[in-house]
Amino acid sequence: MFFASDNSGPVHPEVMQALAEANQGYAMAYGADALMNEVRDHIRGIFDAPGAAVYLVATGTAANSLALATLSNPWETIFCSPVAHIHEDECNAPEFYTGAKLTLVPGGDKMTPEALRGAIAAEETRGVHGPQRGPVSITQVTERGSVYSLDELRALCGVAKEYGLPVHMDGARFANALVALGCSPAEMTWQAGVDAVSFGGTKNGCMGVEAVIFFDESKAWEFELRRKRGAHLFSKHRYLSAQMAAYLRHDLWLHSARRANANCARLVEGLRAAGAEFLHEPQANIVFASFPRSTHKRLHAAGAVYHLWGAELDGEDENEALPCRLVCDWSIGADQIDEFLSLLT
Amino acid sequence: MFFASDNSGPVHPEVMQALAEANQGYAMAYGADALMNEVRDHIRGIFDAPGAAVYLVATGTAANSLALATLSNPWETIFCSPVAHIHEDECNAPEFYTGAKLTLVPGGDKMTPEALRGAIAAEETRGVHGPQRGPVSITQVTERGSVYSLDELRALCGVAKEYGLPVHMDGARFANALVALGCSPAEMTWQAGVDAVSFGGTKNGCMGVEAVIFFDESKAWEFELRRKRGAHLFSKHRYLSAQMAAYLRHDLWLHSARRANANCARLVEGLRAAGAEFLHEPQANIVFASFPRSTHKRLHAAGAVYHLWGAELDGEDENEALPCRLVCDWSIGADQIDEFLSLLT
Amino acid sequence: MFFASDNSGPVHPEVMQALAEANQGYAMAYGADALMNEVRDHIRGIFDAPGAAVYLVATGTAANSLALATLSNPWETIFCSPVAHIHEDECNAPEFYTGAKLTLVPGGDKMTPEALRGAIAAEETRGVHGPQRGPVSITQVTERGSVYSLDELRALCGVAKEYGLPVHMDGARFANALVALGCSPAEMTWQAGVDAVSFGGTKNGCMGVEAVIFFDESKAWEFELRRKRGAHLFSKHRYLSAQMAAYLRHDLWLHSARRANANCARLVEGLRAAGAEFLHEPQANIVFASFPRSTHKRLHAAGAVYHLWGAELDGEDENEALPCRLVCDWSIGADQIDEFLSLLT
Amino acid sequence: MFFASDNSGPVHPEVMQALAEANQGYAMAYGADALMNEVRDHIRGIFDAPGAAVYLVATGTAANSLALATLSNPWETIFCSPVAHIHEDECNAPEFYTGAKLTLVPGGDKMTPEALRGAIAAEETRGVHGPQRGPVSITQVTERGSVYSLDELRALCGVAKEYGLPVHMDGARFANALVALGCSPAEMTWQAGVDAVSFGGTKNGCMGVEAVIFFDESKAWEFELRRKRGAHLFSKHRYLSAQMAAYLRHDLWLHSARRANANCARLVEGLRAAGAEFLHEPQANIVFASFPRSTHKRLHAAGAVYHLWGAELDGEDENEALPCRLVCDWSIGADQIDEFLSLLT
Repeated sequence: MFFASDNSGPVHPEVMQALAEANQGYAMAYGADALMNEVRDHIRGIFDAPGAAVYLVATGTAANSLALATLSNPWETIFCSPVAHIHEDECNAPEFYTGAKLTLVPGGDKMTPEALRGAIAAEETRGVHGPQRGPVSITQVTERGSVYSLDELRALCGVAKEYGLPVHMDGARFANALVALGCSPAEMTWQAGVDAVSFGGTKNGCMGVEAVIFFDESKAWEFELRRKRGAHLFSKHRYLSAQMAAYLRHDLWLHSARRANANCARLVEGLRAAGAEFLHEPQANIVFASFPRSTHKRLHAAGAVYHLWGAELDGEDENEALPCRLVCDWSIGADQIDEFLSLLT
Repeated sequence: MFFASDNSGPVHPEVMQALAEANQGYAMAYGADALMNEVRDHIRGIFDAPGAAVYLVATGTAANSLALATLSNPWETIFCSPVAHIHEDECNAPEFYTGAKLTLVPGGDKMTPEALRGAIAAEETRGVHGPQRGPVSITQVTERGSVYSLDELRALCGVAKEYGLPVHMDGARFANALVALGCSPAEMTWQAGVDAVSFGGTKNGCMGVEAVIFFDESKAWEFELRRKRGAHLFSKHRYLSAQMAAYLRHDLWLHSARRANANCARLVEGLRAAGAEFLHEPQANIVFASFPRSTHKRLHAAGAVYHLWGAELDGEDENEALPCRLVCDWSIGADQIDEFLSLLT
Repeated sequence: MFFASDNSGPVHPEVMQALAEANQGYAMAYGADALMNEVRDHIRGIFDAPGAAVYLVATGTAANSLALATLSNPWETIFCSPVAHIHEDECNAPEFYTGAKLTLVPGGDKMTPEALRGAIAAEETRGVHGPQRGPVSITQVTERGSVYSLDELRALCGVAKEYGLPVHMDGARFANALVALGCSPAEMTWQAGVDAVSFGGTKNGCMGVEAVIFFDESKAWEFELRRKRGAHLFSKHRYLSAQMAAYLRHDLWLHSARRANANCARLVEGLRAAGAEFLHEPQANIVFASFPRSTHKRLHAAGAVYHLWGAELDGEDENEALPCRLVCDWSIGADQIDEFLSLLT
Repeated sequence: MFFASDNSGPVHPEVMQALAEANQGYAMAYGADALMNEVRDHIRGIFDAPGAAVYLVATGTAANSLALATLSNPWETIFCSPVAHIHEDECNAPEFYTGAKLTLVPGGDKMTPEALRGAIAAEETRGVHGPQRGPVSITQVTERGSVYSLDELRALCGVAKEYGLPVHMDGARFANALVALGCSPAEMTWQAGVDAVSFGGTKNGCMGVEAVIFFDESKAWEFELRRKRGAHLFSKHRYLSAQMAAYLRHDLWLHSARRANANCARLVEGLRAAGAEFLHEPQANIVFASFPRSTHKRLHAAGAVYHLWGAELDGEDENEALPCRLVCDWSIGADQIDEFLSLLT
């Protein structure tokens, strides 16, 4: 019963198998391996973007920071949610790589077009004195487990385009969002107005690989230089390629995300039946739920692992509702869900 | 017959096996995995340094840049060889991470104590105007396949210590140097005066892992923050740990390096017998040799893969001696060496 | 009738005179001039801080950015007001110099101890993932013309000290705040808990000079190196020294600030009498007032120069109250105030 | 007898007068002052470059660093002389502002086209691994008092243009070089192939002002943002404008440089007559000469101020020739030269 993070789960066997298969003889280093050609072609096909520039890095923070650095200038400000990973969980990596500032769009987890327009407009009046408007970064799935609808994405990108600003999508959980929406990768990205995507693999069954995709290939060489300068170019690159190749082959990425989302839905259903309240409407594989301390204690005693969310397990009031975060990764089985749910009451 | 780079070889089966074994269930993310404890203890033991701070990253450039950033200030200059990897092959990553400048110690591949002292002394006279003296970075094995003797290391570190400067060792091929010298890790590092080591795994049979070791543990937390800010902290960190754990277990690192060096010596012997000349005295697993164009053509035709060194295969003079670089990684077999040698004459 | 900015006024004749007097013969460059010794001694005396490190730069942004860089690390976040100059008006200079992030303390112009504590506490829980807590920066006079009382300053610094954080004061209008409070420089700074001060001269009658003062002199050499690396060390430094020396001699700084504040009070009194409303309580030399469009038009027609604050002069409703910012610098005469006031009704 | 530096001399009376005249009433801040329009027009006229972008900063290091940052990318390397000010005397400011590396063109003070081509060519072969080729920076007058001829400038710029690289001129002593060559500003800059100039005023009689000139005006807005982000935008900008306006009016810049060069020639003639040897052929207002210790002692005893160059005044051998640097600024009179010369024998 491990619901702490989709960073803690194992690697999918097909990815492990691909690594073993890639481990034959010699291969060109630094991204010139044949598997990378397969990956590039596959991603271009999936995204219906034959000219896209496609690169691999090993961490989500690297994907985000390098993508944003390529889209921005050091005198600009990047617009994002106050709870965006790039703001809260990357220890200033985006600032380090971009030199830019982050402007937090007022509101909650999800940015609204109105709030975004207001934040962009507010940067307008200071000429050379204030930071200039830079990229908009959208997290899909959001950090609170919500999924922007296509209409919402189009509206946010539309605001960015009004001001001529590029759009980055932090898709650490891209697959979970995609299957939640039931749309195509193209619809969720460039057709909506997204210019660059951090396309996550790690959280959904890979060992450590994320693709960065630019739909405008003119950014390609700059990105390569930034990746090397950031020390993120792998010498034995074929092992990044192999992970991503396996992740894409036979739609493993989609199957894994569907499984995670389905198990999460099963969990939500059970929680709801047990009277839990939800801090955010769960739409993918993350749940923020609140239920009594006594239940948390029973779950912990039984070995369930997850994070309380700004609350302490210790306390006298057994009936006090404590919020927690529960993440279902691809590897969680329905049996674990059911075991968890059986402990709720 | 693949002698192009030790970045192009496969991963050792024991490392692959360790990755498979690590792929069980859930593990704490971001370096809190149990395997990392094993790695830390193992490295502290090997180095006879019970208080050492030990961290893992995935690329050698990250190891070097982060180690140097932790040892330096942005108003300093780092002393290194003109052919140091940090100068020639990292696309300004050291400058990006440190903010500092690199001062090239005049001379060739290997720094001499006299040249180092001269370079340090020359930075002396400008007060606040010039960059301040910063760390000395020593590459062991050097980029040209030489190995500093313990006396040479002690002398270089001694010069650094005269000026109160910290010393970094770029040990991308640490194991190859160690077995060439037949000394202990402690002798080759902190006992000689080295403060921090990039301890390479990737080139010697790992998939992508390097340890950074500080003998002064007070640097530990700063390094952790710099690693995260550089986007080099792995979420599924256990797969870095597993590689390094396997690399160290049963002395795999030493066995692999001995094998590479021995095969390289076999290659050198054969080259010498065939009349080749050496640009540098080969002391580990890299050879810079020069022999006739006609021989190069024969080797290329037979499928040998390696880099000519500032020369072109095409040319009319068949007898012209062309220099090349040949690298033996752990996976090269004696049969490949012998096949190569058989083509020399 | 020029109320647009205290950056637009002339230089005080005594400062000009001091520049002329300094223009004799040769002087040591780069801060080794004799006048700098006078300045250092004078500031140490004024602040009752015999060991303070004192430096001069030419712009307020340089003073702030360099002071903050010396107090912080690039993996930290700096706490400040949402309307702080360092956030809104320095085009990412603080981020450039520090590498750090800025955290905006929720609320208005003035930070409250509660809001500051909340913002600091909120950065607590993410370990290596989030930025670490860094300096607190307090603007005195605030950007909206308010002045923190000594109790307020002590309370803010007390919160910073609870967390072991250094405190920076952006004192671009230091003198105006000081005379408003009627306290000593020591009381308003180190006795309250401030560690470093940007001590402004430019807005209060100098040509372009700001002192940076560290009460902990161990920061001195680092600051000197950062100043040079930032290209802010003047070769003909005596002309910075001369300005600051004149500014301090005969209490020119205090006289000028008193004059500015007194004229501002006269302006406020007249505005209040005429029925204007105030967006912030004016406590120094800046007023944010609101009065009818028709009055603004009359003032503009008569040649008054000042900025409407998020409003447009053009518009049909003559009675609509439009906010504006009015700044009184040292050089405004009572006659200008009276002329302005005579046009209100 | 002050020959230590052209940074130590006084400000020309005409510049002081212009500052006094500018000190009337209110002026638009941040470069929007009317005097800046005069300066821009004047410089465009002088350079026969009607579309040039022209900006003012207060230090030479700021001019160089900001100009180079605008011409380069952080993954590039900047080619310069081993004794360039940007390398030796700016405490990593160029690296800070550009993020780039500096590549020292082998040889002495003056770069030769052959050495420059060799250095550029040597950066060619490493693809994404090494830094990319960036701007060439030429110092005119050189740090050793030499002046590149027009042919030499054209040849250096020609090499840069072969590789598509921009050219920066560090013209801290631009005027001294220009009058030495007797050519036009256009000939010495854009007609030779220079893209951006640091046009010095400080060393030649100003208080602290340097112009940065881009002949390609498309760089203008980026430069403005970089200047502000570097904290180098002056609020009371009119006092920078006033200095530069006076410097250009009535050809003060040329008169002052001619005077400095002429006095320097007088000094050289006398030194030569007295048997001094020259380390570099003096071509502008700086001399590197070598003469006996006894003479140095006599000069020092008489109050002459200048720097020995890598030598110590104390020593037993009175006849030992000691090198020194002598700088003539605009304010040195022929009487001082003659007094100095009278002490030589």
